Amino acid sequence: MQGLAPSSKLSLTIVVVVLLLGMAGAAHGLTRVVASSPDEPCMNMTLYYHNILYNGNNTANAAAAAATKPTALATTYWKNSTFFGTLIVFNDPVTVGKALPLTGEEPAARAQGFYFYDKRESLTSWFGFSIVFNSTAHKGTLNLVGADLMGDATRDFSVVGGTGDFFMARGVATIRTDAIEGLYYFRQQMDIKLYECYVWL
Amino acid sequence: MQGLAPSSKLSLTIVVVVLLLGMAGAAHGLTRVVASSPDEPCMNMTLYYHNILYNGNNTANAAAAAATKPTALATTYWKNSTFFGTLIVFNDPVTVGKALPLTGEEPAARAQGFYFYDKRESLTSWFGFSIVFNSTAHKGTLNLVGADLMGDATRDFSVVGGTGDFFMARGVATIRTDAIEGLYYFRQQMDIKLYECYVWL
Amino acid sequence: MQGLAPSSKLSLTIVVVVLLLGMAGAAHGLTRVVASSPDEPCMNMTLYYHNILYNGNNTANAAAAAATKPTALATTYWKNSTFFGTLIVFNDPVTVGKALPLTGEEPAARAQGFYFYDKRESLTSWFGFSIVFNSTAHKGTLNLVGADLMGDATRDFSVVGGTGDFFMARGVATIRTDAIEGLYYFRQQMDIKLYECYVWL
Repeated sequence: MQGLAPSSKLSLTIVVVVLLLGMAGAAHGLTRVVASSPDEPCMNMTLYYHNILYNGNNTANAAAAAATKPTALATTYWKNSTFFGTLIVFNDPVTVGKALPLTGEEPAARAQGFYFYDKRESLTSWFGFSIVFNSTAHKGTLNLVGADLMGDATRDFSVVGGTGDFFMARGVATIRTDAIEGLYYFRQQMDIKLYECYVWL
Repeated sequence: MQGLAPSSKLSLTIVVVVLLLGMAGAAHGLTRVVASSPDEPCMNMTLYYHNILYNGNNTANAAAAAATKPTALATTYWKNSTFFGTLIVFNDPVTVGKALPLTGEEPAARAQGFYFYDKRESLTSWFGFSIVFNSTAHKGTLNLVGADLMGDATRDFSVVGGTGDFFMARGVATIRTDAIEGLYYFRQQMDIKLYECYVWL
Repeated sequence: MQGLAPSSKLSLTIVVVVLLLGMAGAAHGLTRVVASSPDEPCMNMTLYYHNILYNGNNTANAAAAAATKPTALATTYWKNSTFFGTLIVFNDPVTVGKALPLTGEEPAARAQGFYFYDKRESLTSWFGFSIVFNSTAHKGTLNLVGADLMGDATRDFSVVGGTGDFFMARGVATIRTDAIEGLYYFRQQMDIKLYECYVWL
């Protein structure tokens, strides 16, 4: 899972932290690292999120479903609906490459959470979810929230916390729509960069 | 947009950080600043959030709508309903002054997200949303979550992350109800103070 | 409320911070503390969360209710339903011991927020909520999000922010199911450890 390798560019902050720890005589164990610059994340990875929405017929594959109907505002501006108010709950596969996992194969991670459409005039949504890793490579979660301004080429979510291998992480995930197939499947590339990490030093 | 000026009180932490960076020989570029005290945010701004709820007739102006109906618990205590369980999805204007934007004028920002009423005995709600800035003054988002204890004169949300101009921000937003007009409009003053910022030094 | 005592193990980071503040000549007031290791939280507490779900008959006690119905995916795998898509809104009591508060007694805190079931094949959910303290012991909120992987013995939420006595807190809450009584009551033990705090020095 090469996409998950820690950044090779050592942050300046590591130097500072180590310096301090050296001063205090304790440079061992799991140590907090804070990036001093947006160019130097302490960890980065690229993952693909596959939203496979229930369409009434795909019970074998669907991993997301609408929990509410669109509100009356959804069709006041666009007669084809902007889905304003539709809440989608999901437990979708997350992969290192673009392909969906083969049948019976576990994905690199799963994205568990929700999004809802929140604009009358166009398609935008808001996400809250966890990326749940449970493989030999990684165990733990990253928790994200943010606005998905779907009209923009890229948009950023906040990584607001992490657990397990991602203990106390913070960062930014840059999202890009990678594929759309009709109304019931889309794939998003997520470039996740962590700027606060705990690493073994 | 004077309300968005960075705090003029330079944080002690800036001194410490610069000192450290000086020690490491790299005091340039976008640099992380952490406030050492609640009195010294690294950035503060006051904004007004206008919740304009759909009432069945205001399709021209409405920017928020109920996606679920209140639960049975909503009327067990108050016969006029505490709306327990009602989920509101919104894309509401956010302004620097109290007035709504003129027709055709873009607001300073938009608040995109949701809240829901969560108490049987009285009106309280819980918010998750992004303040989306897309103007010449600011581009980026602030992500907030928190309990809106509507009976209190002021209450605090957490700013849990930021992107763009607000890269990796954290802070606290103090909320005060500024106006209520019937059931379908309210305005909240938000005093946003960031205690973790990245600034150009 | 002994469960809320700050950790007695002084973090290495406190030493470093104080050292720095000493260098800058300002070791007084509310000061930021960051744990240098997962073993040394700056504050920890154990609390119990009581989910008391509305069952149609318990209007006197219920503090949570379903705002949406399960989606069609909820019964495609388990005929007894995994509740996929059911959104629960709650304002539940939080206590220091396992017992519910006596009638008329205020709990140590309240948990206000939501969870929803998000998996077709088994019971898992996703939480967003605030722990609201309003007692002589503590005033303020902790804001949490995360995946509740109910099949695991323990699972971790992120504490993504705090206000009042928990100003700017971050940490991890480890959750363990402590009791389940039918479909309408469960109790979870929450071991909350904060790794970023502001403390009086």
